[in-house]
Amino acid sequence: MKIVETIEEVRKQVKEWKKQGLSVGLVPTMGYLHEGHQSLMEAAGKENDKVVVSIFVNPMQFGPTEDLAEYPRDLDHDAKVCEKAGVDLIFHPEPEEMYAPDFCSFVDMTGLTEGLCGKTRPIHFRGVCTVVNKLFNIVQPDRAYFGQKDGQQLAVVRRMVRDLNMDIEIIGCPIVREEDGLAKSSRNTYLSQEERKAALILAKTIRLGEEMAKTEKDAQKVIEAMKKNIETEPLAKIDYVEAVDAVSMEPVKTLDGECMLAMAVYIGKTRLIDNTLLNA
Amino acid sequence: MKIVETIEEVRKQVKEWKKQGLSVGLVPTMGYLHEGHQSLMEAAGKENDKVVVSIFVNPMQFGPTEDLAEYPRDLDHDAKVCEKAGVDLIFHPEPEEMYAPDFCSFVDMTGLTEGLCGKTRPIHFRGVCTVVNKLFNIVQPDRAYFGQKDGQQLAVVRRMVRDLNMDIEIIGCPIVREEDGLAKSSRNTYLSQEERKAALILAKTIRLGEEMAKTEKDAQKVIEAMKKNIETEPLAKIDYVEAVDAVSMEPVKTLDGECMLAMAVYIGKTRLIDNTLLNA
Repeated sequence: MKIVETIEEVRKQVKEWKKQGLSVGLVPTMGYLHEGHQSLMEAAGKENDKVVVSIFVNPMQFGPTEDLAEYPRDLDHDAKVCEKAGVDLIFHPEPEEMYAPDFCSFVDMTGLTEGLCGKTRPIHFRGVCTVVNKLFNIVQPDRAYFGQKDGQQLAVVRRMVRDLNMDIEIIGCPIVREEDGLAKSSRNTYLSQEERKAALILAKTIRLGEEMAKTEKDAQKVIEAMKKNIETEPLAKIDYVEAVDAVSMEPVKTLDGECMLAMAVYIGKTRLIDNTLLNA
Repeated sequence: MKIVETIEEVRKQVKEWKKQGLSVGLVPTMGYLHEGHQSLMEAAGKENDKVVVSIFVNPMQFGPTEDLAEYPRDLDHDAKVCEKAGVDLIFHPEPEEMYAPDFCSFVDMTGLTEGLCGKTRPIHFRGVCTVVNKLFNIVQPDRAYFGQKDGQQLAVVRRMVRDLNMDIEIIGCPIVREEDGLAKSSRNTYLSQEERKAALILAKTIRLGEEMAKTEKDAQKVIEAMKKNIETEPLAKIDYVEAVDAVSMEPVKTLDGECMLAMAVYIGKTRLIDNTLLNA
């Protein structure tokens, strides 16, 4: 496994592979890799001859009051996870390699990016679209893998690829959870022991919503029940609980088509997200 | 020469060529082709095995009060011009092929797009960046050719390609002029006989600026002289005359580095542009 820091090195390696007729899968990450990322690498390994993992904490997708500086980093650990998962190349650029001092282009979206996490994080998806667009252009993979955990991000990336005619297949992979149900996230490391217990309320509420939606098709009733359930946890503060169309991310009134129950909840200062797809 | 209307057909053809190891040059146009476009096709033909010309009047780059409906179109004529220039493939999509009803992604830029034509045409470069980005992803050419006539557009496309790491070489080609000096433009067809004569003031003023800049390095003085010259033509109304850095499009005070004298002038209702590169 190679670890490279420059765009030129990635391009050179991928072009060599393509000349040999090999297919390439990309797993874009911000590092501090966990079993969720591992499942993406494994999926990529099954469907492609070569697997590239990018590890880049992208400044452009963090708001001025968000956790860019605190975001956990551990390249040595990440390299071991990748090695074990059979990854062929890690791309680990410095911010300067990705953003020239006079960088001024961006990729953005209306609609899908405005609700859910976009409300609390107004510049987030512009940063995500821009860096993912760049990574796609740098690596030129056949397929790219994203976790369903960031459900809105997955929908946004799919839309960007469709709208801008990027010649890449986007694969969404199921949420990976801890034994007790908490969705795996690099941000879970921010939680104190007490908060870690309290954080379970997200997964429990997702399960509650799933169960209820089997018979109750009124989205508002399901959302209200989920909110009430979260409010039983004193350390939890709701950012949003919503039911949206799985493709357009627009709120739905009835839970009959393919849709997503999604939430963001603060546990102490840590903002966690979780979701589930219905009728998928 | 093939003419195709769907993205799928373009992709299929280009992939066949690439499998054979052939290089591809793209000339993006809005059609109504003139000798300026022809010079781009010829340049593309010299440097690439295959030449693709896109003909698409892109609604997204026209403002609500601009000339989208009136913009001249003549596919039969264009096909003849392309055939004669040795073009291999014309991509001529309908707007519906390029923009799905729920299309919502875009590529945009700060800085370079804000001055010059960006002032009068605030959404223009967002439309240009988005459609050029799409065309690059659809055709995946090795090189793409743009006229220096749209000097700001060329700088913007270069910057987009650099910032978003698109693996494409951008080639700028010199302005092609009528015998009397008027820069070739599809919009010249809007001019009445009287206006056509008056329109010469642009080229004359560009030559005046070029001459003056050989000795006068104070940008403001050159700009003032150019403005005065334009004002001698009763049918002309200045939109802007500016001296900008050739890469950043930022106004310069001194004409010593690589810079551009650029202007937009209304002749009657028709808005025409012209420019020249200094110290290039």
